[in-house]
Amino acid sequence: MSNTAGQVIRCRAAVAWEAGKPLVIEEVEVAPPQANEVRIKILFTSLCHTDVYFWEAKGQNPLFPRIYGHEAGGIVESIGEGVTDLKAGDHVLPVFTGECKDCAHCKSEESNMCDLLRINTDRGVMLSDGKSRFSIKGKPIYHFVGTSTFSEYTVVHVGCLAKINPLAPLDKVCLLSCGISTGLGATLNVAKPKKGSTVAVFGLGAVGLAAAEGARLSGASRIIGVDLHSGRFEEAKKFGVTEFVNPKEHKKPVQEVIAELTNGGVDRSIECTGSVEFMISAFECVHDGWGVAVLVGVPHKEAVFKTHPVNFLNERTLKGTFFGNYKPRTDIPSVVEKYMNKELQLEKFITHKVPFSEINKAFEYMLKGEGLRCIIHMEE
Amino acid sequence: MSNTAGQVIRCRAAVAWEAGKPLVIEEVEVAPPQANEVRIKILFTSLCHTDVYFWEAKGQNPLFPRIYGHEAGGIVESIGEGVTDLKAGDHVLPVFTGECKDCAHCKSEESNMCDLLRINTDRGVMLSDGKSRFSIKGKPIYHFVGTSTFSEYTVVHVGCLAKINPLAPLDKVCLLSCGISTGLGATLNVAKPKKGSTVAVFGLGAVGLAAAEGARLSGASRIIGVDLHSGRFEEAKKFGVTEFVNPKEHKKPVQEVIAELTNGGVDRSIECTGSVEFMISAFECVHDGWGVAVLVGVPHKEAVFKTHPVNFLNERTLKGTFFGNYKPRTDIPSVVEKYMNKELQLEKFITHKVPFSEINKAFEYMLKGEGLRCIIHMEE
Repeated sequence: MSNTAGQVIRCRAAVAWEAGKPLVIEEVEVAPPQANEVRIKILFTSLCHTDVYFWEAKGQNPLFPRIYGHEAGGIVESIGEGVTDLKAGDHVLPVFTGECKDCAHCKSEESNMCDLLRINTDRGVMLSDGKSRFSIKGKPIYHFVGTSTFSEYTVVHVGCLAKINPLAPLDKVCLLSCGISTGLGATLNVAKPKKGSTVAVFGLGAVGLAAAEGARLSGASRIIGVDLHSGRFEEAKKFGVTEFVNPKEHKKPVQEVIAELTNGGVDRSIECTGSVEFMISAFECVHDGWGVAVLVGVPHKEAVFKTHPVNFLNERTLKGTFFGNYKPRTDIPSVVEKYMNKELQLEKFITHKVPFSEINKAFEYMLKGEGLRCIIHMEE
Repeated sequence: MSNTAGQVIRCRAAVAWEAGKPLVIEEVEVAPPQANEVRIKILFTSLCHTDVYFWEAKGQNPLFPRIYGHEAGGIVESIGEGVTDLKAGDHVLPVFTGECKDCAHCKSEESNMCDLLRINTDRGVMLSDGKSRFSIKGKPIYHFVGTSTFSEYTVVHVGCLAKINPLAPLDKVCLLSCGISTGLGATLNVAKPKKGSTVAVFGLGAVGLAAAEGARLSGASRIIGVDLHSGRFEEAKKFGVTEFVNPKEHKKPVQEVIAELTNGGVDRSIECTGSVEFMISAFECVHDGWGVAVLVGVPHKEAVFKTHPVNFLNERTLKGTFFGNYKPRTDIPSVVEKYMNKELQLEKFITHKVPFSEINKAFEYMLKGEGLRCIIHMEE
């Protein structure tokens, strides 16, 4: 039992006071975990597009002040009542979506969309009592997707914590708590390319490159990267991408360009941008008879997916995935093991590192489209 | 060797001289089969919507005079050069799409969309020489989808013939050469409901009822039939349909009605009408996390499938199928065996029987929406 258990902890957190304004490092109070909650010490966190998207709050309900952050690695400081499978000192990855192990989704072999703990971007409080565990001088600060990892300490529902190998370096495997697992799982769990397949990946950011990494692990013979920025191809080669198509450099629709390159279409495609035009292209570029397209990127609210139904009738399949179809508690520990046994490479996703006090630099890198992932280390 | 081998056969055929006009029983000449072709004697044929659709030629290229018909059972009369796996006397089902056993589709475990012999509704001639094998006083009559079974004798590419158990009654198993296999395979090969699943079937014609029959064989616990004609529910019960929804009787979209009936959606749905509105409903009525919707019905040319991409991202799958994903030569013989060992019931699909001379009655029944299948027996 840590000596802070049951006490309010005062620590540093990066607070977003207003939409789109730089975060401010503040001293916050972090209340002890309630029933089925766990308080964890964050050692490393990284920045994902989703944080930026909700921080910008352009199309979203603004909810401020708020502590963002959901890709991270930490150590359990103390547990609330009823928590049995975690204890102080355990190494954990917080995940923005949970696994209650009790609902129809958790009991299904196919779904990871837990009824109780499914991502909720509008909720800024804890599930049990509708209150925040963060405050500044008594004034509550909102949570974000149940994780709020831009804080030295945070409180998370036990169902949103994957207990991992304590030997795993948290400054690397923290990436598995969101983006990398999302892309990797989209390929390994959903698209499932056979050895020797051709695979197209739309969007060569971190999620798309993780999808490509999954295709490489599956033994794909050709991995075609599609991106509007040709500069990304060079970096993408490290992730197994063998060919590159920039839709801006072609007069015909990119699905036609890919069909010509591949004698009728790729075996699998994975869409990681959220652009509905790319979703349509990703679907229409798979081969008839057996092609499978997988949607990963999150579209804007008004987006409409449109295609001629004959594209389905010609035996194409379109699926979507959420967090790579991984169940956070059941499956993520084994993804960490893939890294530990050197099957999966994570280092190549890390292009920047900053101390917590410089967290706004991570936002700047992402807004400029520079690099893939910036690791933020909480200890200066 | 039959004594007609190598000779032109004169026999009766029902010729469509003009779009939408009653067929006329004529004496036609049927040329001997060329390389890789087989001439068969048709004993029983039935009428499928596709025949009527192309005979009406409302949205299609008109091609007349033509001999329609593609659901049938017959016996090999003679074979052309190079045919090795069929001989005179073999019992066969002609199929509107083929299996060359040599192309990428035939070699794929997943596809049945043979590159060489895939359905071609615009071609009215044989593949090898671009000529018809039918004529009246030397004037060619067009073929239809390579089968033209509304004739006492017809010539078919060997790749479009399934060799079946000679003990199987052709007046029943002839139904397996198109519609019933299409619906049955959509469920058994593509939707693959688990035992205890809930399944929605859109459209309770012969194909939809065959899909329901597949759900019944799979052990579905609830089979929800959706049709605009409430009168069809009574008949549908014979095929395992347990509940009925008529979209016209509800103010909300049928997908919402079904979601309410099933605690969030069905496990599987199968769309057998070709209406794009039903396609959208069939997709949106499956449960998030694991639901799979399968499209079977053929839409009109301008149809556009539209949905919000989040419906995919919430882990729904949409697939299409063609001829129930059965490979005609490899798989159809085993479907005949399902009937022979009484697993599959075919009798309940047969609601009418007429002699060949009264073939136009079969068209009338279908145009009035009366019954399911009308068996046309070639011997009066």
